[in-house]
Amino acid sequence: MLASIAHSVPPRSYGPWEQVASTLTEGLVERGHDVTLFATADSTTSGRLHAEAPAGYEEDPSVDAKVYEALHIASVFERAADFDVISNQFDFLPLAFSRLTATPVVTTIHGFSSERIVPVFRAYDDIAHYVSISESDRHPDLTYAATIHHGIHVEDFRVGAGKGGYLLFLGRIHPDKGTHEAIEVARLAGVPLVIAGVIQDAGYFERHVAPHVDGDHVTFMGPVGPGERDALLGGAQALLHLIDFDEPFGLSVVESLAAGTPVIARPRGSMLEIVRPGVTGFLVGSVSAAVEAVGALGTIDRGNCRADAQERFSAERMVDDYERLFRSVVDARS
Amino acid sequence: MLASIAHSVPPRSYGPWEQVASTLTEGLVERGHDVTLFATADSTTSGRLHAEAPAGYEEDPSVDAKVYEALHIASVFERAADFDVISNQFDFLPLAFSRLTATPVVTTIHGFSSERIVPVFRAYDDIAHYVSISESDRHPDLTYAATIHHGIHVEDFRVGAGKGGYLLFLGRIHPDKGTHEAIEVARLAGVPLVIAGVIQDAGYFERHVAPHVDGDHVTFMGPVGPGERDALLGGAQALLHLIDFDEPFGLSVVESLAAGTPVIARPRGSMLEIVRPGVTGFLVGSVSAAVEAVGALGTIDRGNCRADAQERFSAERMVDDYERLFRSVVDARS
Repeated sequence: MLASIAHSVPPRSYGPWEQVASTLTEGLVERGHDVTLFATADSTTSGRLHAEAPAGYEEDPSVDAKVYEALHIASVFERAADFDVISNQFDFLPLAFSRLTATPVVTTIHGFSSERIVPVFRAYDDIAHYVSISESDRHPDLTYAATIHHGIHVEDFRVGAGKGGYLLFLGRIHPDKGTHEAIEVARLAGVPLVIAGVIQDAGYFERHVAPHVDGDHVTFMGPVGPGERDALLGGAQALLHLIDFDEPFGLSVVESLAAGTPVIARPRGSMLEIVRPGVTGFLVGSVSAAVEAVGALGTIDRGNCRADAQERFSAERMVDDYERLFRSVVDARS
Repeated sequence: MLASIAHSVPPRSYGPWEQVASTLTEGLVERGHDVTLFATADSTTSGRLHAEAPAGYEEDPSVDAKVYEALHIASVFERAADFDVISNQFDFLPLAFSRLTATPVVTTIHGFSSERIVPVFRAYDDIAHYVSISESDRHPDLTYAATIHHGIHVEDFRVGAGKGGYLLFLGRIHPDKGTHEAIEVARLAGVPLVIAGVIQDAGYFERHVAPHVDGDHVTFMGPVGPGERDALLGGAQALLHLIDFDEPFGLSVVESLAAGTPVIARPRGSMLEIVRPGVTGFLVGSVSAAVEAVGALGTIDRGNCRADAQERFSAERMVDDYERLFRSVVDARS
């Protein structure tokens, strides 16, 4: 399991790639597989840990990303013959090593940071086994082995009653995530808004978010760790996920469903696959439609949200899917 | 020959790493070696050219450095079995691939951009064949196969008379290179200064260089290509090379000597190996010592500068050194 080294595995707070690598590693180990997790030295796993980077380069400024990415990826491929299959959760750089080993490499594409990175994926399309994390995130030039939606430990979340008297924004504070639209929708709906997440765009936060934070109608909590999310999500009437980009997947959306909390999202990217309109939330094309959706939240059964998360977005389902794919790739080789 | 892809090989103007890769490739081809140059598609060579990147990432903003570095380096190692030896002029990333092939990799370290990159060099010290480009640039933690000073085509430069009535600054406009000190020295010596080079630090240029440029006492020419350097260097009384860092090597210093032009440099880094005080220039610890050195330029025989460049810094000498090293590495393997 070749994880990202931006954060530890699992991440302390933000780190969706690292979260998926952790959930998948632990799930495979539970099923009796011998898994070596290549991650930062402050990572934890019930499998074997191999580390080159002392800590995540997003967390420790003394860690040079380029330097430790090189050492980290090389350390996997130098031992490739020890493994039946390499699960690449790292993005494109490991592909450059993939023709130099006979061990198959299954590459999960966690989204395309830009169209400019597509040439590398295209160059290895003939030997790669690409996994898309949603149907919507598939690139037309590439051949995919599977789409595998992320899964979470649904049992870590209690179904909340949604009686906290607030709407919730949970995610990176960034224009892409529509924090300012969530503020606008909550204001028009007359419901307080709680904002939780890391500030990824400080200028945006200063201009479009901070001026509205009054601790009453709009509260800002900063990043919240996995332990706090349960109560925060369970108390929310709904999650406002008014993204302004084609989000490849939304872990916070699935966490919200696990807590029984419906999601009001824009019909973009993976939201069309994750949210079931009228059943687990609403897909809204405008601020006014979002305000209307807040008014219609009473029609959503929170038990259905939880059941949908359990059925479609559990860790077990994700581990099943990867296990099946790894097995077929290994079988095809031998 | 694995070149940098920041610029074309040879570079149109700035690009010392690419210049060395070109000079070495052409020299080896002339001696009958079968050389494949891995470089940008707009590169030229009398050997074979293999390109992944359409152009240098410093020259074409549509070229993503990380993407094309990955494709570029992979393309060499995927064909490594075709080659007796790989000459890595690219920096540290190719080392990460070097244990995955039996073909020896000789890595020229063109300087350490920071102490933070040393861990990668250290990790491959056991199998690497490192070349330092000056004795002064050797890192105490590493094992070196050779020091090979860069060489240039000395015959491309005519020995100038130094009668242009100016001192010359030639190099990147950056605090490291002491552009502002050259201005100060020229002013105190009462000799006009010509400044030529790419602006690498725009803030520094605006604050410390531009205010002095009057087209009379101080002239700024911008970057000058190889064709213009000959006349520019030949007309200068001296090259002012008042660097404020331990420069691993100074190609412009050697070009200056080839044109017969003495060098006034700080006694730092490779300058202690390149400049012969009293014979080909002066090493000065202060602005006032530099001004004194300008006054003593009459004691330097420009013919000695040229002869020293020919003897110690010619392309032939550099190609000899690399050819000998490559041969010994290949012989040791077989």
